[in-house]
Amino acid sequence: MDKFSVTIMPENLTVYVPQGTNLINAAKTAGIDIESPCGCRGTCGKCQVKIINLGGVDCPDSDYVLACQTRVEKDMVIEAPQFSRLTKHKVLLSSEEKESLLEHGYFKDVEVNPLCKKIYAELDKPDLTDSMSDLDRVRMHLMKNCGIEDVKISISALRKLSNVVREGDFNITLTIVTIKDSAEIINIEAGKPDSPSLGLAVDIGTTTVVVNLIDTENGKIIDSAGTYNKQSAYGSDVISRIVYCDENDNGLELLQKAVIETINELIDTVLKKNKINKSDIPVMVCAGNTVMSHMFLNMPPTFIRLEPYVPGASKYPVVSSKDLGININPDAKVITLPSVASYVGGDITSGVLSTLMSKSELLTLFIDVGTNGELVLGNSDWMVSCSCSAGPAFEGSGITCGMRAMDGAIDWIEIDKESMEVKVRAIGNKKPLGICGSGLIYSLSEMLDSGIIDRAGNILENGSSIRVRMGNEGKEFVLVFAKDSGSGRDVVVTEGDIKNLIRAKGAIFAGIRTMLQQVELDVDAIDRVYIAGGFGNYINITDAVNIGLFPDLPADKYAYIGNSSVHGAMLVLLCQEALYEIEDISDRITYIELSIGNKFMDEFISALFIPHTNLNLFQRCGV
Amino acid sequence: MDKFSVTIMPENLTVYVPQGTNLINAAKTAGIDIESPCGCRGTCGKCQVKIINLGGVDCPDSDYVLACQTRVEKDMVIEAPQFSRLTKHKVLLSSEEKESLLEHGYFKDVEVNPLCKKIYAELDKPDLTDSMSDLDRVRMHLMKNCGIEDVKISISALRKLSNVVREGDFNITLTIVTIKDSAEIINIEAGKPDSPSLGLAVDIGTTTVVVNLIDTENGKIIDSAGTYNKQSAYGSDVISRIVYCDENDNGLELLQKAVIETINELIDTVLKKNKINKSDIPVMVCAGNTVMSHMFLNMPPTFIRLEPYVPGASKYPVVSSKDLGININPDAKVITLPSVASYVGGDITSGVLSTLMSKSELLTLFIDVGTNGELVLGNSDWMVSCSCSAGPAFEGSGITCGMRAMDGAIDWIEIDKESMEVKVRAIGNKKPLGICGSGLIYSLSEMLDSGIIDRAGNILENGSSIRVRMGNEGKEFVLVFAKDSGSGRDVVVTEGDIKNLIRAKGAIFAGIRTMLQQVELDVDAIDRVYIAGGFGNYINITDAVNIGLFPDLPADKYAYIGNSSVHGAMLVLLCQEALYEIEDISDRITYIELSIGNKFMDEFISALFIPHTNLNLFQRCGV
Repeated sequence: MDKFSVTIMPENLTVYVPQGTNLINAAKTAGIDIESPCGCRGTCGKCQVKIINLGGVDCPDSDYVLACQTRVEKDMVIEAPQFSRLTKHKVLLSSEEKESLLEHGYFKDVEVNPLCKKIYAELDKPDLTDSMSDLDRVRMHLMKNCGIEDVKISISALRKLSNVVREGDFNITLTIVTIKDSAEIINIEAGKPDSPSLGLAVDIGTTTVVVNLIDTENGKIIDSAGTYNKQSAYGSDVISRIVYCDENDNGLELLQKAVIETINELIDTVLKKNKINKSDIPVMVCAGNTVMSHMFLNMPPTFIRLEPYVPGASKYPVVSSKDLGININPDAKVITLPSVASYVGGDITSGVLSTLMSKSELLTLFIDVGTNGELVLGNSDWMVSCSCSAGPAFEGSGITCGMRAMDGAIDWIEIDKESMEVKVRAIGNKKPLGICGSGLIYSLSEMLDSGIIDRAGNILENGSSIRVRMGNEGKEFVLVFAKDSGSGRDVVVTEGDIKNLIRAKGAIFAGIRTMLQQVELDVDAIDRVYIAGGFGNYINITDAVNIGLFPDLPADKYAYIGNSSVHGAMLVLLCQEALYEIEDISDRITYIELSIGNKFMDEFISALFIPHTNLNLFQRCGV
Repeated sequence: MDKFSVTIMPENLTVYVPQGTNLINAAKTAGIDIESPCGCRGTCGKCQVKIINLGGVDCPDSDYVLACQTRVEKDMVIEAPQFSRLTKHKVLLSSEEKESLLEHGYFKDVEVNPLCKKIYAELDKPDLTDSMSDLDRVRMHLMKNCGIEDVKISISALRKLSNVVREGDFNITLTIVTIKDSAEIINIEAGKPDSPSLGLAVDIGTTTVVVNLIDTENGKIIDSAGTYNKQSAYGSDVISRIVYCDENDNGLELLQKAVIETINELIDTVLKKNKINKSDIPVMVCAGNTVMSHMFLNMPPTFIRLEPYVPGASKYPVVSSKDLGININPDAKVITLPSVASYVGGDITSGVLSTLMSKSELLTLFIDVGTNGELVLGNSDWMVSCSCSAGPAFEGSGITCGMRAMDGAIDWIEIDKESMEVKVRAIGNKKPLGICGSGLIYSLSEMLDSGIIDRAGNILENGSSIRVRMGNEGKEFVLVFAKDSGSGRDVVVTEGDIKNLIRAKGAIFAGIRTMLQQVELDVDAIDRVYIAGGFGNYINITDAVNIGLFPDLPADKYAYIGNSSVHGAMLVLLCQEALYEIEDISDRITYIELSIGNKFMDEFISALFIPHTNLNLFQRCGV
């Protein structure tokens, strides 16, 4: 097969790829990741690049083309602009969050009894009258001195046992992982321990992945790292990634490889930074939604997307890291937290675990807004959950100038009701490139308050502002003019975008209403609301209630709980009982399938108004 | 590095190897295995080859050289004669033995409750009101219909679950392995089973390896295959192989690879012949001595050979076949049977299990004669064991014309007391090449009876026979003259060989006496004697008693039990309780270290006479 050169500017990186390769894959070969929320189907328009030379001929006036639809047939030079690239997200790391976590007291009643411990052992030395095997000697010591019976041993630990025992002159440090009362020796060191007992808690998000390195003896977060999920190159949401799996040979293998690489790079970063050996990590606890968990374990996600939406598993086996290609101790135990249903995953059970709501009498509403809005309502007696297809609007997808929460994304705006002048703030103090979820909520709320839109989401004729105008896609409101933006293009909110956002917020609110109806309770019965996820952390509750996204409850009932998915994973790491508890949570949560019957649809239609068609539901916010 | 060609005759196979490669490794590259009992240390002289062309120059009159000591420095043509090659052994397969096994009734009280079973399941189909995960659906079915709770699933089975379930329209066959009451799904097929439930029982002998393919539902041996252990190229006995591990970089890796290759080839043979897929084998039970078990699992055997002779483990973890490189279902469970001590291994516990002596009131003596004589004495109340370094004489090693039990080996002789004429029989009806263990016992007994040797093992001057003469190594007796032999050389027994054999038989007999003294019992207290192993099967009890190898008990107390190591492995496969029983056997057997105190040494010296210095011990055999 012929190969051609592709040079990517402005880096001036050249790679040689087979004829027919699309430009996204060509760029990937050069280590440059291009956005592809639609999974290379040519529908999202996010992967624009410019061809500046084709077969040796300069193309000075060429327009942007879609990288996913452009195949290499000649030598090429292309320009890949920043706005088409996957760059580092603003990832919510737990280390930043730790204080608020402790503040809320989630872990206050939890006694630390971690999955992994290091035990220093001074063994009796053998002689001809006591030639017991090395392993029996270790087992005897653990039984007599630590009350640990029937300990198992991993094959890699067993292989080094005899030499390490003698290297330490029969004084050794054992790393023992105990999962559901079954203890196994995962690592052996000569002499006394030279590092604390360590474990990893991982949040495998569709968009971002976070790895926390934990000292399991005291629960301290030693370090934390996060980055975007490399699977994003195959589609921004779980559905497009499932489609990618189903439509491409080795699709699943590629997606698994992508998420494993993402995790490995993060692990590598925190281990190197803290000078820790791979073999010192004996356990890793992962929380992800059902699709992420399936792909992580290399299980086909196909049937999750097809009615009746059946996942392969909801409780996953504990596997060895070597079976997944995770670069820690090869026999380390990898725990994937259990899910409830196809669209209520291990990130949600983990979040619920972290709030301890399953052990509380208070009626709690747990909300995680992402592509789907996942909701759990309940207390220690009962729990129900549902997933509302809110669509990716709050993640910036399907919105004209939408983008994820990364540098240059507008995350706050304010509109002067007199002058209609707009103040914006963009992440990283950069020039604005687009709008992320929290910016969109502010926009909607501010546009409503300043009379730019009506309660149905229509942009009103408003001769007093040059910011309201007719664009290519219909009416639009200009937040930032091209001269002030980072992309050289206007940043706008169109009427179509607004309708899109109303559908998204309407779906979530309808989900909450449907759950409440199912258990015959009123909104006011809710004692507290936990807003989970990176998205939740940047939004303003008043504005979110104002647009009808969240129910009209006193602000002090609301709490941001940050990345509760990784908090739950940490809790499992620190507390052996938590693994039983989260499986119990997964069993106890009743999943409500919203597509059965008309209740949800009726609620949804009633919610397609700002804040709602029934204004009685929003008396408190002063509508 | 320079490479040179080595051409091996008469096959005329040419390989290219780096300068400095020894000829054993060069031949191995060409797929030809040369004998190397001493592990390439140049001491055994068994690897003789002839150089017929060196650097393009013919060498018509060259002598034999040692392949292990000859390094490639130029292009070479060598001749590797048959007597220097590892050829197919006469391996005792269980299929031949099955009748005698049942005859002895060892398994008669055993109810078949195998480690692996196939279960056909017709699952309820999911719909929107029942969207339970595929795995939960399977678990629910097993709980409701089969009483199997808390079943686990292997990662490879889980990965194919969703597709197979739908391929079979929710009718599937599950292969479940239950080890110590913990059940795990190892394989899933669509629809009804297309093969029976299968398992492998493997005997990993130092010299030979046997694989039995078992139908676990009815205990039938479907097929059996055996061959020499490829580790033989690194040394004929366990000690020389441990030395090879310790003295060579990657020594252990090479030895593990050799035994895994041996097993894989046998598995491949039986599976192909019976048209069975690899994925259909979910479990394998292996019995081997302690050194073989360590090397099989890639555990360093170093300290087994050094005082105080401590093995790495006596109970081994259950591992996945993929962790060892065994070519069956990647998640198949590989069980390595537990040992007692460094020199009483899993082959012995397995043999003891197969005799059910641990459940019988009869006092049983279990004898396995190989390089070591391993002995177990006891009943359901108590068991003791020991290992006597008999040396490899009975395996033909260290004996001038000794060889293993393969084609051309003399396994029976008769000497006419008048004419001193000798009748011999060689395995495979071939011309005699040498003498194997059973042939050596016959030789000793016949030479004694015909007055060629005295009770101390001295060859007497006997002018009446041209077969008695002075050779290079001292006095010798010619069994077969060169003209009748297959090697063109005389087959002789030297006085040195006889002393060697007396030491070997003396060690075993002294071991038996020491054990009896330890428990304060007399030989006559023994109710039955089981002779295990390939060697045992070809020897004549009367002659073995006659030379003082075995105690002087009525012949009807003796029974050959063949390859009891593989029988025990089969029993574990067929009976879940047997795994508990064999671990109990491994715990209950008290190991007697013969090197402590003088008892064994005194007994040994008394036994260096044919049959013994104390003839009262051999009244029955009419001495």
